[in-house]
Amino acid sequence: MPDRQPIFVLVRPQMGENIGAAARAMLNFGVGAMRLVDPRDGWPNPRAVAMASGAAGRVLDSATIHPTTEEAVADCTYVYATTARPRDLTKQVFTPEAAMADAAARLAAGGKVAVLFGPERAGLENDDIARANAIVSVPVNPDFASLNLAQCALLTAYEWRRQAAPAEGARMDYAGTEPATAIEVARLGDHYEDRLDAAGFFFPETKAPGMKRTLRNMWSRLELTRADVQMFHGMLRQLLRRRDTLAEDRRED
Amino acid sequence: MPDRQPIFVLVRPQMGENIGAAARAMLNFGVGAMRLVDPRDGWPNPRAVAMASGAAGRVLDSATIHPTTEEAVADCTYVYATTARPRDLTKQVFTPEAAMADAAARLAAGGKVAVLFGPERAGLENDDIARANAIVSVPVNPDFASLNLAQCALLTAYEWRRQAAPAEGARMDYAGTEPATAIEVARLGDHYEDRLDAAGFFFPETKAPGMKRTLRNMWSRLELTRADVQMFHGMLRQLLRRRDTLAEDRRED
Repeated sequence: MPDRQPIFVLVRPQMGENIGAAARAMLNFGVGAMRLVDPRDGWPNPRAVAMASGAAGRVLDSATIHPTTEEAVADCTYVYATTARPRDLTKQVFTPEAAMADAAARLAAGGKVAVLFGPERAGLENDDIARANAIVSVPVNPDFASLNLAQCALLTAYEWRRQAAPAEGARMDYAGTEPATAIEVARLGDHYEDRLDAAGFFFPETKAPGMKRTLRNMWSRLELTRADVQMFHGMLRQLLRRRDTLAEDRRED
Repeated sequence: MPDRQPIFVLVRPQMGENIGAAARAMLNFGVGAMRLVDPRDGWPNPRAVAMASGAAGRVLDSATIHPTTEEAVADCTYVYATTARPRDLTKQVFTPEAAMADAAARLAAGGKVAVLFGPERAGLENDDIARANAIVSVPVNPDFASLNLAQCALLTAYEWRRQAAPAEGARMDYAGTEPATAIEVARLGDHYEDRLDAAGFFFPETKAPGMKRTLRNMWSRLELTRADVQMFHGMLRQLLRRRDTLAEDRRED
């Protein structure tokens, strides 16, 4: 996680629970710097502490309190204001993704950036937004927008983490095994082909070459692990053993 | 919003409130298809309904109930299982972003995809995950992971929306104005340069060309709108008018 990170500024938050939930949401993605502007119920707030826990409690402990938004962002070089609705202010509007990519670049260049989150009901006031350098707006469903404070902080922190420390999009968890080699897959194909041949599976004979190719193609396509190959060998052996035992039993009857 | 979308399957959810909150979270990003596997407190659940509202209530109304995960995803061609921890199962592991990009491609090709979300406390069981085609894992802070069910659904739906209907990352909200043209900015520069010259601002004379160039450069850099240009003209005119009035008042004294 990069050391330099955006400061999340909660402007006039109302419910302590939501401040605690925002701290938890942020910390899921490694954002630990919180500032509070004039929290309605004062500070410290026991309901905020009850909602946070462990490391999220430490986010609250280190949060600073400021009487105005202006003072809260005084030392910041770039400020984003989160808002859901248009404000009739000429301003750059970013998606959370683009905003946090922009923030990561500014932080890497030595800047200090903050993100403003408004009070639960009304959101930020236009006066707060006019002091910010840009707007962040989550592209929600226009027919149903109901993001709460912690969810807005969650999505912003998620995007920060995604831009600042991208995760590998897709990876195979081999869980103790590894991909089979081509020769292992070929031997497995041989094993099945031999036994199926003996069992009369490739019938009629004119179709046998095509059926064998289809089967061979399947084994290659499955991206088998070494454990899979052993499993398929073992299944076949056991099925034949069981069949042979049954056949023997029947002969003995 | 695309018509074809992933189905969110809540496996053995416990609290009705969380089912309602998940419906709200999904609908923020236009995901409206929910299936429930064996909800702990039966169905319909009044607490779920109380938590949802408006369109989110309709997500609950149209949710289908299934006794097992197998039955819930019977008609799906690809199933993702969300989980936070490694499971000792050989499986593809996607970030939400990569998973939903993959889902968008499968849906566009006519597939039917589902995403499994586990019960609040324990998450999905390994038996559920073994039936899924791939794992989705949110890259949370390893030292503090506390995503709840609705937040997990929120991030997944957010990524679905982002992959299926990408928003413009950065755009200028001109709020009724538009960018100034070069000639408008040049005339503004002329206006200030003339008045400042008359006021003796460019002093000493040897430094005047450099100061004028710096000022001209600033006007160009500011990316002014037409409204900004009018504002700057108006401010200058008013400042001079006020100054001249004051000077006249003083003469009359």
